[in-house]
Amino acid sequence: MALVAPVTIRKVTGDTATEKPDLLAVEEPLEIRLGFGPMHDRQQRSVSVTMRTPGHDQELAMGFLFTEGIVHKPDDIVSCRHCVQDEAKEGNVLRVELKPDVLVDWTRLERNTFTSSSCGLCGKATIEAVMAETAGPVESTLHLDAAVLHSLPDRVRDTQRAFAYTGGIHAAALFDADGRLLLVREDIGRHNALDKLIGAAFWQGWLPLHVHGVFLSGRIGVELVQKSWKAGIGLLGAVGAPSSLAVQMAQEAGITLAGFVRDDRFNLYTEPQRIRLPMPVEG
Amino acid sequence: MALVAPVTIRKVTGDTATEKPDLLAVEEPLEIRLGFGPMHDRQQRSVSVTMRTPGHDQELAMGFLFTEGIVHKPDDIVSCRHCVQDEAKEGNVLRVELKPDVLVDWTRLERNTFTSSSCGLCGKATIEAVMAETAGPVESTLHLDAAVLHSLPDRVRDTQRAFAYTGGIHAAALFDADGRLLLVREDIGRHNALDKLIGAAFWQGWLPLHVHGVFLSGRIGVELVQKSWKAGIGLLGAVGAPSSLAVQMAQEAGITLAGFVRDDRFNLYTEPQRIRLPMPVEG
Repeated sequence: MALVAPVTIRKVTGDTATEKPDLLAVEEPLEIRLGFGPMHDRQQRSVSVTMRTPGHDQELAMGFLFTEGIVHKPDDIVSCRHCVQDEAKEGNVLRVELKPDVLVDWTRLERNTFTSSSCGLCGKATIEAVMAETAGPVESTLHLDAAVLHSLPDRVRDTQRAFAYTGGIHAAALFDADGRLLLVREDIGRHNALDKLIGAAFWQGWLPLHVHGVFLSGRIGVELVQKSWKAGIGLLGAVGAPSSLAVQMAQEAGITLAGFVRDDRFNLYTEPQRIRLPMPVEG
Repeated sequence: MALVAPVTIRKVTGDTATEKPDLLAVEEPLEIRLGFGPMHDRQQRSVSVTMRTPGHDQELAMGFLFTEGIVHKPDDIVSCRHCVQDEAKEGNVLRVELKPDVLVDWTRLERNTFTSSSCGLCGKATIEAVMAETAGPVESTLHLDAAVLHSLPDRVRDTQRAFAYTGGIHAAALFDADGRLLLVREDIGRHNALDKLIGAAFWQGWLPLHVHGVFLSGRIGVELVQKSWKAGIGLLGAVGAPSSLAVQMAQEAGITLAGFVRDDRFNLYTEPQRIRLPMPVEG
């Protein structure tokens, strides 16, 4: 399936309207089903339905399953394939086969999916829960020049195929201390773009991402910090603003949070020591 | 609780950093609990946990319950209050008491909450399901001049208290054919801002909103069209882009969808006849 879909629009500028062809970011549901249990008593269960932009579905599923604590290493997964039985849903159902010995914590999963995929956790109290799961703050050794962060918005946008056409799709980009872009993923949902990125890194065996940063095209809600924490990411930069709870969680996680990264400026909310500046800080 | 929270940031411009006070949009969980059943066998059940910006919580709950099809009229609700028993969660738990004769369709609710509050439904197939629940396309009689739509971005932003301070919060605004702003609600989540707006209108007895339009500060995903359809809204305008599925659902719903409403221009994706232009449409 495509990232973009064609449409005819009526474009109004001031008092004038013209009919024009245009492109939209595609939004379609993706259902993730788990196959689990011993070989003689194999079971299936649906664990998530999310509205997403098609493409990199396997990575989305793996990023979701990893950040939700269902899988811990690539070796937990036997296969990850689109179901083709149901014609009407073709391409929108993905089945992930777990190794027979992988135990799934259903209680935890139900609690999390109940609170919605755009949330993923339930407030301040669970900052501690996430900390328990992640065994403390991130151990990132990342340090980089402010100039690297300044350069990211334009460079990430240049790689965004779908955004260029539609103006309506988010990106998550993985970069290193030298500012090299290692991965860029796009999705109509910010949390999906990050799941795709983390899922790709998970599958490559790159986790924890202790020498990498992530750059996001939107705002930073707490669930994006949670996912980053799980993946060991030391720096999260974004074009938009962080929320109060995102900053609180980043503090606990030891993650450097940079917001409003655009136009040769940014704001640091936590852990500023990872960013090197040529000039001393003014009071 | 406040819409904004104070923070000290390190503001980096080019090579220079300065310490400054700043404000963040508050993000906190809200749990919605239903009290239901006959008086002699009263029960309670948690139906949603969403990350939201505190304020207008009752409206958020009512908008959510109405657009999810749990309540149908203000008279279904006996009361809607914050729980105060649990100190740690004070202000983050809201209990809605339903009249004893209100029957809740739990199967439907579970299906929807499972698919996440930021989604609310599961793709193309359920466009028909929503249509069945709404008894067909909206019966809006709204017509307005293009100039009204052009004027909305600046005027809505002027009313946004929290955005002015934080730069990181969404708005939903209700307006009429003359461009009068009747209600504006803010939230860190787009779907919450719209739930607050619809909840307020629901409680006032204004539904269906057949002579009103809604203006949104962000992009238009399918769940925002679904909520608007439920409320009978004939025109949905937004600063951002709509998704492919949002346009498909708006077509079925008979809703006028206007995207990229900014800088004296906008794009019409569906039902353009509700917008009056002084000039004829060019080919």
